Amino acid sequence: MQRINYPQPTEWEEILKRPTQTVSDIEEIVNSIFKEVQAEGDTVIKKYTAQFDKVSLESLLVNDAEIDNASNSVSDALKQAITLAKSNIEKFHAAQKTSKVEVETMPGVECWQEKRPIQKVGLYIPGGTAPLFSTILMLAIPATLAGCKEIVLCSPPDKNGEINPAILYTAQLCGVTQIFKVGGIQAIAGMTFGTESIPKVYKIFGPGNQYVTVAKQLATQYNVAIDMPAGPSELLVVADDSANAAFVASDLLSQAEHGVDSQVILVSTSEKLVKAVEKEIENQIQLLSREEIAGKSIGNSKLILVKNDQEALDLINEYGPEHFIVCVENEGFYLENIQNAGSVFIGNYTPESAGDYASGTNHTLPTNGYAKQYSGVNLDSFMKSMTFQKISKKGIKGIGTAIELMAEAEGLQAHKNAVTLRLKSLK
Amino acid sequence: MQRINYPQPTEWEEILKRPTQTVSDIEEIVNSIFKEVQAEGDTVIKKYTAQFDKVSLESLLVNDAEIDNASNSVSDALKQAITLAKSNIEKFHAAQKTSKVEVETMPGVECWQEKRPIQKVGLYIPGGTAPLFSTILMLAIPATLAGCKEIVLCSPPDKNGEINPAILYTAQLCGVTQIFKVGGIQAIAGMTFGTESIPKVYKIFGPGNQYVTVAKQLATQYNVAIDMPAGPSELLVVADDSANAAFVASDLLSQAEHGVDSQVILVSTSEKLVKAVEKEIENQIQLLSREEIAGKSIGNSKLILVKNDQEALDLINEYGPEHFIVCVENEGFYLENIQNAGSVFIGNYTPESAGDYASGTNHTLPTNGYAKQYSGVNLDSFMKSMTFQKISKKGIKGIGTAIELMAEAEGLQAHKNAVTLRLKSLK
Repeated sequence: MQRINYPQPTEWEEILKRPTQTVSDIEEIVNSIFKEVQAEGDTVIKKYTAQFDKVSLESLLVNDAEIDNASNSVSDALKQAITLAKSNIEKFHAAQKTSKVEVETMPGVECWQEKRPIQKVGLYIPGGTAPLFSTILMLAIPATLAGCKEIVLCSPPDKNGEINPAILYTAQLCGVTQIFKVGGIQAIAGMTFGTESIPKVYKIFGPGNQYVTVAKQLATQYNVAIDMPAGPSELLVVADDSANAAFVASDLLSQAEHGVDSQVILVSTSEKLVKAVEKEIENQIQLLSREEIAGKSIGNSKLILVKNDQEALDLINEYGPEHFIVCVENEGFYLENIQNAGSVFIGNYTPESAGDYASGTNHTLPTNGYAKQYSGVNLDSFMKSMTFQKISKKGIKGIGTAIELMAEAEGLQAHKNAVTLRLKSLK
Repeated sequence: MQRINYPQPTEWEEILKRPTQTVSDIEEIVNSIFKEVQAEGDTVIKKYTAQFDKVSLESLLVNDAEIDNASNSVSDALKQAITLAKSNIEKFHAAQKTSKVEVETMPGVECWQEKRPIQKVGLYIPGGTAPLFSTILMLAIPATLAGCKEIVLCSPPDKNGEINPAILYTAQLCGVTQIFKVGGIQAIAGMTFGTESIPKVYKIFGPGNQYVTVAKQLATQYNVAIDMPAGPSELLVVADDSANAAFVASDLLSQAEHGVDSQVILVSTSEKLVKAVEKEIENQIQLLSREEIAGKSIGNSKLILVKNDQEALDLINEYGPEHFIVCVENEGFYLENIQNAGSVFIGNYTPESAGDYASGTNHTLPTNGYAKQYSGVNLDSFMKSMTFQKISKKGIKGIGTAIELMAEAEGLQAHKNAVTLRLKSLK
């Protein structure tokens, strides 16, 4: 890890640079698969499933028997853990429901705002060795709470044409309406255009490799929305001598094992703590099964010593971390003043992995500095707000002249006329 | 206007097609101006201002004297109208404030969600003959209510290097912190990268021509968010014999005068009403100053006769109109079941222009079918939600095993270890 002592604010930009991804070279392949799927549907999807996932499928849709089998092969202990996580995530997301906002802005001018569910959503869950069933909890639970009618899930099949049982089990438990054995670019294209088997959706959620990321970006050019722009995962910890160095090291490593491009940063006013954490990382990393991955991303990562809490805060707000752990005596200062962070974890007994799995908060969060302007996934991500207004005769009499004057000043005579006609009829 | 009687649902897709825009040919120029502004800042902005707006500027920033002068040249009547609109818009958007959502999901596991303002936002206001000061009300009022620190506005100067007084007056009235005389692609590029004079912002709002639209799309590739994808404005009216045909015609025309690519649609179960509205349009259009524009978009527009309310509703939800006027006896049916619409206007005395200017609702709304998945601009558009969690010793004991099991099942050992270490320390 790089140790950086008391950097000048002018150096922050360079120090806080994230590992960059180049995607322009894969845009072409994504574009061409999209065009093929748009024109030929399932046939093309099956062709690419054979090519990339090495399996020929008759049906893309997972059937009830497959879901029942999957349910039987998940251990009871894991089922209990998933049930506990589901309960917490449900509680926290259900509490985010907002009621109708209703205001009579002037006598006879009633305005209100209501949220209604996005009717059709698509969830993408990557395959590979780590079956990310936790991400299904994070996406399908709020989708179901929001009232989305169709909740479609795509995940790539393995060489035997199967999807990991934990994924199937969690999907049916959380209200997913259809599961498809489709991965990668072809899955995103399928949900964008719709095919003979896969429904077209209005918004696509979920993580993925760089191909999926570019495909989601391209989907936005075809009237589909996405949850947020993607980037490598990241964690910033601010800690002082009140922090347990072993715990801090374990949190930094838990983020580092995600991928070689993950980034972890420790910010501290205490040189003693920085040194202790560095030593703990050296010890703990040797015991990890994903030591090689964690080692590489730890190599990119930084231990930054700063003068005081204000400087630490300014640097953190400049960075805008996806995950932000606060382990300091003066925690109130950070909680009150943090402006840019996806999710905040407070104190020695709040590991980031609690939020990744089971505490109740969502783990789909803005990376790459997007915490400055994007929310993490929440209940509202599956709804849209609509406004309504109803104006009475009295109302239009009260507000009409103002509208006429403003429309005229903007040179929009027909806008004015729509009011004038009504006012005349009431004379 | 095209009259379409009792179309089959299979024909809806074709009937409801929006006028399309091709933008690929202007992407190249947008890309190249972005690269130049990124590299050379103000110098390039001034170069393009000279080229496109035909004026050489010393300073891009509007100064206090210019704002004072502008204020003096806006009529008192217009000021009063703007003040009334501001008051209504403030009331409706202030009511959208949400409080902290706090849940103890399990004993010792406290989770909460808070919204914090996006620190730096940019507003784009087009120039030309129609000074859209009303859009400043719609963007700067919620930005100020949200607590955004920097609210930057860019609008192109005229040949004399000036911005319309109504724009300057409204901007200062609504809390804009800096106003720049910059338009088009170079304005969006300036707010994306920041220059010597223009601050870099985190999110850009506001309408514009196709160059601005493409520039906003490109900005999203440089870590900037935008309000929503843009498209031509549109209105759908559902009306029966309880509607006033002259009022309906005036609303359709008020939308049609926006631009030649605007789209207006009337859906009705009453042939009598359809014919009456058609006749009213023919009469009213002759009196409009923007008759030529309105005539062209009316040419693209449709009068659709349907069998019953259910069919009307299904067709409307399939279309997802930006503006939706409901003028029917059975209005409750539509209000309850409309799923996809930007803003809904109810009854004979609620012209769409009320919402465009002064009733209190926002006029920045999803077009092009995006009402299926996007909200119109509202208070939350200027904030992001962050989550927080604090787990006690008791809390981690209660939740720890579930996290360990799930992390293990996902093959993420370091995630598990972060919990195991803490649980061990508590034995």
